[in-house]
Amino acid sequence: MEEKALASDLDVINELVAGKKYRELRELLADMHPQDIPELMEQLDKKDIVLLFRLLPKEMASEVFVEMDSDEQKILVEAFTEHELKEVFDELYLDDTVDIIEEMPANVVKRILKISDPETRKLINEVLKYPDDSAGSIMTVEYVRLQPEMTVSDAFTQIRRVGIDKETIYTCYVTNRDKTLVGIVTAKDLMLSDTDKTIGEIMEEEPIYVDTLDDKEDVAALFNKYNYLAIPVVDKEKRLVGIVTVDDAIDVMQEEATEDIEKMAAIMPTDKPYLKTGIFETWRKRIPWLLLLMVSATVTGNIISSFETALASSVVLTAFIPMLMDTGGNAGGQASVTIIRALSLGDVSFKNIFTVIWKEIRVAVMCGVSLAVANFVKILLVDNALFGHGVTVAQALVVCITLVATVTIAKLVGCTLPMLAKKIGFDPAVMASPFITTIVDAISLLIYFGFATTLLGI
Amino acid sequence: MEEKALASDLDVINELVAGKKYRELRELLADMHPQDIPELMEQLDKKDIVLLFRLLPKEMASEVFVEMDSDEQKILVEAFTEHELKEVFDELYLDDTVDIIEEMPANVVKRILKISDPETRKLINEVLKYPDDSAGSIMTVEYVRLQPEMTVSDAFTQIRRVGIDKETIYTCYVTNRDKTLVGIVTAKDLMLSDTDKTIGEIMEEEPIYVDTLDDKEDVAALFNKYNYLAIPVVDKEKRLVGIVTVDDAIDVMQEEATEDIEKMAAIMPTDKPYLKTGIFETWRKRIPWLLLLMVSATVTGNIISSFETALASSVVLTAFIPMLMDTGGNAGGQASVTIIRALSLGDVSFKNIFTVIWKEIRVAVMCGVSLAVANFVKILLVDNALFGHGVTVAQALVVCITLVATVTIAKLVGCTLPMLAKKIGFDPAVMASPFITTIVDAISLLIYFGFATTLLGI
Repeated sequence: MEEKALASDLDVINELVAGKKYRELRELLADMHPQDIPELMEQLDKKDIVLLFRLLPKEMASEVFVEMDSDEQKILVEAFTEHELKEVFDELYLDDTVDIIEEMPANVVKRILKISDPETRKLINEVLKYPDDSAGSIMTVEYVRLQPEMTVSDAFTQIRRVGIDKETIYTCYVTNRDKTLVGIVTAKDLMLSDTDKTIGEIMEEEPIYVDTLDDKEDVAALFNKYNYLAIPVVDKEKRLVGIVTVDDAIDVMQEEATEDIEKMAAIMPTDKPYLKTGIFETWRKRIPWLLLLMVSATVTGNIISSFETALASSVVLTAFIPMLMDTGGNAGGQASVTIIRALSLGDVSFKNIFTVIWKEIRVAVMCGVSLAVANFVKILLVDNALFGHGVTVAQALVVCITLVATVTIAKLVGCTLPMLAKKIGFDPAVMASPFITTIVDAISLLIYFGFATTLLGI
Repeated sequence: MEEKALASDLDVINELVAGKKYRELRELLADMHPQDIPELMEQLDKKDIVLLFRLLPKEMASEVFVEMDSDEQKILVEAFTEHELKEVFDELYLDDTVDIIEEMPANVVKRILKISDPETRKLINEVLKYPDDSAGSIMTVEYVRLQPEMTVSDAFTQIRRVGIDKETIYTCYVTNRDKTLVGIVTAKDLMLSDTDKTIGEIMEEEPIYVDTLDDKEDVAALFNKYNYLAIPVVDKEKRLVGIVTVDDAIDVMQEEATEDIEKMAAIMPTDKPYLKTGIFETWRKRIPWLLLLMVSATVTGNIISSFETALASSVVLTAFIPMLMDTGGNAGGQASVTIIRALSLGDVSFKNIFTVIWKEIRVAVMCGVSLAVANFVKILLVDNALFGHGVTVAQALVVCITLVATVTIAKLVGCTLPMLAKKIGFDPAVMASPFITTIVDAISLLIYFGFATTLLGI
């Protein structure tokens, strides 16, 4: 529904642009939500993007700008006069300015820094210094600061004076003279308190805070746990330097989930949307794991080669190799992916490793036995009776025992590797299906040929 | 760090409980964050959970209760007197009450409904009626309602009067006499406006709203796009019936990502944390796909069987089967998982299908050729020179050509199936790696044996 609405808006806009009906165009844009406009702009010609942007009411311009993709932002910034550039960037919050600067080429960055006032320039440079994955890199410095000795009505005056430029006024931060964070006060507390009480009396002491260098994914997890709208960020001396707001935390959570999913599928993470990523970049993100996994499959190949004579005398066993390998890979993938997600949601940690292993062993035996029974029946009824493959009962038993052993080992490897990886400081997500599959393939073939040579005497 | 802190708290608590030092225990608990207490309680004995809960300061009790897992909630509710039950549930927001009721056995639900006042009981029953995946099921009915003709100072009086019981006071909803939603006013607007202006003058008209029956995942996506703190929910007549707050939207986003990840790993989604899920349930969630995928591997087995004679005469070809199958599976998995995530983030939709296919074909050929070259070199240098497997150049070429074809088809199948699934109303996430692997296995073997018989004349 929404998609159709946008499509018809696009037709109208193209018509108005073609007919140069700029007044109607301006009215149409003014009635839209700023967040809906970038999607439309992406589908326009380069020159029409600039035209449309200049028609936007002044107070909407920076709201629209901040939601655009960096490609379109670049087009605009390059077309902007110094005056326009200043108008747009003066309205942005510092965290958004920094995000944009990080995506722009050096000459554009220089222009942006030039039009910023010295105070902002200093702050931009400070925030740019924080590592990419730190709380400091996603914090904003526009927040309301109160002192403990202020009264509630002083606080309201302060909020009215400075609030318009702040990203959130719903949580205010109480600091001492030396800027140490001593408490927080929500707008709800202020609105529901007597106006002559002091902030010190009504504030929540010992609020949750994070350090500038804390991992931004840990910060996002705090929002999930405590349902906050903002969390204060302090430096090593516990002086307040910024806040992280819930909208930025949501972005971090979504990026984190996407990254985990990509790593699980043996792709190196990218932070661009699919359609914006060029084919060379997509290739570059996918080929390393494909290559590595292909080369490690040499091991499996060698195992098969070393049983060449056994296989030549009993080729029917070859037909079960894909089934055994796929089932092992799937069973291991289930365990590893479950544990990886549980680790990343904080449901499981290294101290649970024996609980996890004991649970996976029991589930694995149950899965393995169910599969073995189903497979035995299938061999007799389908492979033999229907297709006449002539699998002997002994051969069928070898396949079924291998199945139980493979599934058990696959689940064991699948649950252990991600936890060990996390323990030694690696990312558990790369220990997902493709990696597990390669290991499990080799193990399951060894078990298979082991049972086959022992039990069938080939 | 946080984990260690909790572990030492646990020791202290166990010591205080053993020594019956209840006053110290009460003081310790009062100083903690309500969200940290449930984690500690989970690790206590059943009877100590009840004891600890009764020691909580009154105003913390329901905050702690709402964060607990349903197992612990059940223990408490069963131990509660009617009076305690009423005390805890009177403090809960309606959406939380409904969430808890949904997890409780019938006799507990009856007790909860009995102690609720008639108005609340009616609302609970209404919210319970909405489907599990709808906006209605996650909305809260505690919000601030204003009329357009009120002044800003009337609005403040209203907020002070009713605000304490409302889940959010930061967005207020403006309705007509017939309860139709006509606008929203944020607390920021109110605090920064002249007190004698009317709400009608300062409100944002035509706010974004959702319908009670809209999919909750679509609602969560709106939060991601518009950075709201709450979104109003209306019925078919556009009358306001509730709001969805950002904390509930975050929960939906996290659940959605977990579900997608589970489906991608061939697991049926569960909504319980890993350690809380019994082994029978874990088995039940994993076995259906394992069985289905095992049985469908029959096809691959049959393909190998039908080339039995060819293989017996050239067993060296068998050694490459695992590598070809794994690489095909990995390549297809990369494409399918990327597209599934892009679909679920709204980066890609069905109208982009040709763009996607064209892009995947080019990436696939690049990946396929890179892999083929690497593989050819590997066969000559490692398999032949190092291990002396004696692979002929013709055989090596067959393997490499198959590799290019397999990777291309795998990526094509991997990107197309999720989009088609979405188009016809299925969940694209089940079209992930394991499913794609099974299809790609069969195709790659057919290609392999096809090339082998044609080019090698076996």
